[in-house]
Amino acid sequence: MSDLPASVSLREVGPRDGLQNEDVVDTAAKVELIDRLSRTGLARIEAVSFVSPKAVPQMADAAEVWGTIDRVEGVRYSALVPNLRGAELALTAGVTELEVVVSASDTHNLKNVNRTTAQSLDEIAQIIALAHARGASVQVIVATAWGCPYEGDVPVERVVGIVGRAVADGADSVAFGDTTGMAGPGRVTRLVGETRSAHPTVALGLHFHDTRGTALANVYAALQLGVADFDASVGGLGGCPYAPGASGNVVTEDLVHMVEDLGVATGVDLEELLDVSAAAERMIGRQLPSQTLRAGPRTRRAR
Amino acid sequence: MSDLPASVSLREVGPRDGLQNEDVVDTAAKVELIDRLSRTGLARIEAVSFVSPKAVPQMADAAEVWGTIDRVEGVRYSALVPNLRGAELALTAGVTELEVVVSASDTHNLKNVNRTTAQSLDEIAQIIALAHARGASVQVIVATAWGCPYEGDVPVERVVGIVGRAVADGADSVAFGDTTGMAGPGRVTRLVGETRSAHPTVALGLHFHDTRGTALANVYAALQLGVADFDASVGGLGGCPYAPGASGNVVTEDLVHMVEDLGVATGVDLEELLDVSAAAERMIGRQLPSQTLRAGPRTRRAR
Repeated sequence: MSDLPASVSLREVGPRDGLQNEDVVDTAAKVELIDRLSRTGLARIEAVSFVSPKAVPQMADAAEVWGTIDRVEGVRYSALVPNLRGAELALTAGVTELEVVVSASDTHNLKNVNRTTAQSLDEIAQIIALAHARGASVQVIVATAWGCPYEGDVPVERVVGIVGRAVADGADSVAFGDTTGMAGPGRVTRLVGETRSAHPTVALGLHFHDTRGTALANVYAALQLGVADFDASVGGLGGCPYAPGASGNVVTEDLVHMVEDLGVATGVDLEELLDVSAAAERMIGRQLPSQTLRAGPRTRRAR
Repeated sequence: MSDLPASVSLREVGPRDGLQNEDVVDTAAKVELIDRLSRTGLARIEAVSFVSPKAVPQMADAAEVWGTIDRVEGVRYSALVPNLRGAELALTAGVTELEVVVSASDTHNLKNVNRTTAQSLDEIAQIIALAHARGASVQVIVATAWGCPYEGDVPVERVVGIVGRAVADGADSVAFGDTTGMAGPGRVTRLVGETRSAHPTVALGLHFHDTRGTALANVYAALQLGVADFDASVGGLGGCPYAPGASGNVVTEDLVHMVEDLGVATGVDLEELLDVSAAAERMIGRQLPSQTLRAGPRTRRAR
């Protein structure tokens, strides 16, 4: 237990990755969600994505949301961009932390953006150059890092190679996304270990999906390796893991609950976060897959 | 990774712990469930409990079920008994592996069986003596081992003390039950470690509930300590973890899926088990909390 990090930095992705996979929510509700999340103690919030409104109507109001939210001192806000044009829009809106996604699997990348992994990496190099020229940072998120629903296993060397390319192109940090929940704790240990061996100084975040129930086991495996940077979605916004094809983002409050119980600080006020999760359920109009919201924290007593 | 056990022995508790917490199922359906489970490769099946039919109508047909199931070579079948009278009934029915439960928390034990933990342990000593005289073995299951919904944290020393008493009284094995899902991987590591230090030779099983999402993380923590004996419930029979007060047994197929992916053999044919889980859902008439049943194993490809 002694080698767990003393604290972790969580990035809340519910407002972006979550709401992008739900029915369209109005601007005021999004802003309220982000503002409430900002007051829970979360370190970072992925607020919006600057994508084509035709492709992703859920994010059509990204610039308005970005311009309206109340920024809380100490909280970092970021935006996802799909391409150079999105990066331009985000930088113009004043975003200083960008995220870009590339899939480690060619098939998955082709199905998503009609390009090979290598073609996407070429554009990402341009995005990084543009962002740096405008004083912004870029995180490269490697999707399907633990497996692709079309190709199956993705070789660890391929993922590590993509990290190498991103680092060479100036990426400020890298994250691995378990897009369809194909990671397990052994695979997490291997990929993180190989990445660290090849790129010892890269800032590394992990983004797990609970599609097959392993998300918190994966977090525990990663903590044992000293990883201290995780994505999560309040209430599990972005799809119930029980619905086919849904994303099944790991639930922020479940992650906070487990991690704090391990003696690892998150900075998050769990009771506040549970209130926000309950509000997110009301906003979405269906039960979200949060377990701590249903059961309450382990410190809650029965009568 | 190298210190994980090569294989684990799973005990399927769906037919007993599961069905005891569902609406009454008819005898033929129970027998069919057990018979199908017997052919999946599971090592052990907790088939029934010999309890008062007034208190637990779901198990009123225990003797009939026990007498009707098709025993598969190599599979071990067990029954839970609540007291000396239940043990008599079980032994008369021919049971050779008994389980008895005592709660580590006095409040929980008093609410359950109107006795203190110490009073229950006295009766358990008599049950062990009776079973041994009749050639049967007894496992003592310590409930609320990681916390009590009324009292909160249960001191590790108290749980280890109960193990000592059970071992002194001749218990053949001990299991820890996380009755309301209050365990986390750090707590698992501590309790298993302290138990091993005090009682190095005790055969130890673990029974997790996924009430707060940590069940598979707990399994992973226990595997790292070499624990190789786990309970699980097909489909998560026995209550959805999202329903207040429900038991939320860890799902057998989710556990098998993660553990096999770690390179730890379970002996279970996962596709067979998923078929049984789907049948259990039809039998119960509602969606069970299995995630692998919804998403499919990670080896399943999208079209």
